[in-house]
Amino acid sequence: MVVCSIMALIIQKYGGTSIGDLQKVDAVATRIIQAKKLGNKIVVVVSAMAGETRRLDNLAKQITPQCNPRELDALLVAGEQMSVALLAIALINKGCPAVSLSGSQLGIITDSNHNAAQILKIDPSNILQVLDSGKICVVAGFQGVDANGNTTTLGFEGSDTTAVALAAALQADECQIYTDVPGIHTGDPKIIPQARQLENINIQQMLELSGLGAQILHHTSVAIAEKHKVPLKVLSSATGDGTVINHDNGNNYNFSVISGIACNKKQMLVTAKNINYKLSNNIISQISARDITIDMLTLEQSALVFAVDSLFKAKINNIYNDFLVTDGLAKISVVGSNLRSDAKIINTIFATLDSLEIEIKICSTSEMRISILIDTIYLEQAVNAIHGAFNLAELEEIITA
Amino acid sequence: MVVCSIMALIIQKYGGTSIGDLQKVDAVATRIIQAKKLGNKIVVVVSAMAGETRRLDNLAKQITPQCNPRELDALLVAGEQMSVALLAIALINKGCPAVSLSGSQLGIITDSNHNAAQILKIDPSNILQVLDSGKICVVAGFQGVDANGNTTTLGFEGSDTTAVALAAALQADECQIYTDVPGIHTGDPKIIPQARQLENINIQQMLELSGLGAQILHHTSVAIAEKHKVPLKVLSSATGDGTVINHDNGNNYNFSVISGIACNKKQMLVTAKNINYKLSNNIISQISARDITIDMLTLEQSALVFAVDSLFKAKINNIYNDFLVTDGLAKISVVGSNLRSDAKIINTIFATLDSLEIEIKICSTSEMRISILIDTIYLEQAVNAIHGAFNLAELEEIITA
Repeated sequence: MVVCSIMALIIQKYGGTSIGDLQKVDAVATRIIQAKKLGNKIVVVVSAMAGETRRLDNLAKQITPQCNPRELDALLVAGEQMSVALLAIALINKGCPAVSLSGSQLGIITDSNHNAAQILKIDPSNILQVLDSGKICVVAGFQGVDANGNTTTLGFEGSDTTAVALAAALQADECQIYTDVPGIHTGDPKIIPQARQLENINIQQMLELSGLGAQILHHTSVAIAEKHKVPLKVLSSATGDGTVINHDNGNNYNFSVISGIACNKKQMLVTAKNINYKLSNNIISQISARDITIDMLTLEQSALVFAVDSLFKAKINNIYNDFLVTDGLAKISVVGSNLRSDAKIINTIFATLDSLEIEIKICSTSEMRISILIDTIYLEQAVNAIHGAFNLAELEEIITA
Repeated sequence: MVVCSIMALIIQKYGGTSIGDLQKVDAVATRIIQAKKLGNKIVVVVSAMAGETRRLDNLAKQITPQCNPRELDALLVAGEQMSVALLAIALINKGCPAVSLSGSQLGIITDSNHNAAQILKIDPSNILQVLDSGKICVVAGFQGVDANGNTTTLGFEGSDTTAVALAAALQADECQIYTDVPGIHTGDPKIIPQARQLENINIQQMLELSGLGAQILHHTSVAIAEKHKVPLKVLSSATGDGTVINHDNGNNYNFSVISGIACNKKQMLVTAKNINYKLSNNIISQISARDITIDMLTLEQSALVFAVDSLFKAKINNIYNDFLVTDGLAKISVVGSNLRSDAKIINTIFATLDSLEIEIKICSTSEMRISILIDTIYLEQAVNAIHGAFNLAELEEIITA
């Protein structure tokens, strides 16, 4: 694509709370027009207005909890269809020509895995036509169509995925994800009051964080951004401040960097004792076949141990009769780069929790994160203590040289 | 199309009040399944749930009363998109396979006249594919796409048009329009308590009635049904009873038949006195250019006289300074066939109103209707008296031999 030298192509994504009512839609329209007036081409991706997707989902679930997946998708996309049209009406009303696109107009072709479809292909011709006519293109997030024209959705928070995938397909100069929290923090500000906003974060670390329950960016969207090197920013829809996600390879540094702390509540620790290789293989293949996501898997002294979301309790218990299950746990993950090579970091975590007499049920380490499981009741105390021990509220990311 | 001899293709259309809540959606699903179990192929056309289109329209109008027409269409179609998906979920939940289609999936191609688009072409391949797989096809009414894939809507009550146009394109054996009133009556039951339900009505008379404010069927849909000889029924969604609209040519009879009485409130009588041929031509061409619908036009003794909906008051006053405008009138139309040739009918109307001392402001007659304008305050009294004078509550349509 040829981009005029002074004109950037910018993707802006606004979530449901950013356009939660008509007043907020108006504020978002004003922000978009500011970016447009700087001479940029703008594609805006929007979610459904806050609460709308839940309202539609509730209607369907009142008929049956086991909705037909195709029809549930056909129902849910109406939420985004409304919000793109309303935002386009608001933009046009402010004198700024705009065109909304949704459904098959988007050119987003997915597989047929309803409710959690994967994008296969993007035909950006409709979007480019709108941009070339000098108008703002307002795009419905979360949705696509399969090869047969059936409506599909990209799963929870799929609008992030829409934005990043379009940024990749259009080779956008910048993909801006606007949220109601001001950028990426060293931890969840609701749990850790001292959490500090990061000015920068490495994409690999963002990938770990988004996979660990840090609900800022949809994990799939970060993976697409990493693969296609999409220039990504997470910004506050109130202030416009936020975090730049960079594509430098953190592993080039020979010191450890901690970016932040992620938490997952409602975790279970599952142990199968006295098992052999064949049985453990069988258990793992059954877990995989049932689409259960597990974490922190270890196999030691004839025992298979892993962490799993409590959501999967019933499914897990069906696999093997003799599982020992400890429920009511929380996972704390310290995310950064070069972590495994630095024993000081593990030591700091252990010493901090030991001083609080909080028991670590299990610990696992990798290049980019150290995760532990503890009792959920200690979660708040533990993450704040770890956040403080690494001085994350103060330091500019470099922990040990 | 080849239809198996024992299997009929039936189009059923349900309006917003018929599917006003999930309980009603459930009842409609039950009725559809009954028809399916008789061995029929079923296409169901649905409107948005009652109040939904108004809710969406209000949201847009809160931003600006002058909405961009394309974006208003993109917004409004979400209403039908929700109702088709919910009905499909309800059908599937009752064990009856169903597929919803909306937007570009429908194959309904219109012109680009947003908010009041005309159907240009129907590609029924998606619908036929659903039917051939033995499933019920649930179709979003009111909407189409133009040649460039932009979403369009067919105007007020456009779902009737969708149903009849699909019936024509699919050569359906029957098109059933379900409403919350039991079929076509000799007059509006809300105004005329004695109004009788008609078992049959001729399509030309239905065309007159629907063009005269009888809000049972969208006028465009009746016109399409007449042109393509669509077998049409208007049925109560509560009881399944209703009126058959037949395609016999009423003019073959040499006696007068009255089918019913239609009313239009909020009419104005407009008079331009002392005008010449050139000026009257100029006025009429300006009326046409402004898309104003007029009725009962007469040109007599240098005076141009016509009736027009009060809606157009501002537009009318812009055309000619010296119009004499009488507002607050109502139009009563007696609709039937062979009416002009029978002076008894006109005489009955005049004598009835004269006995009540109700002044007739203007009267016009045609082959299929006699219309009069009176003060709106006398409307109820007048229509009930005329309905009684023609004994419409009792007689089986034939008035004079």
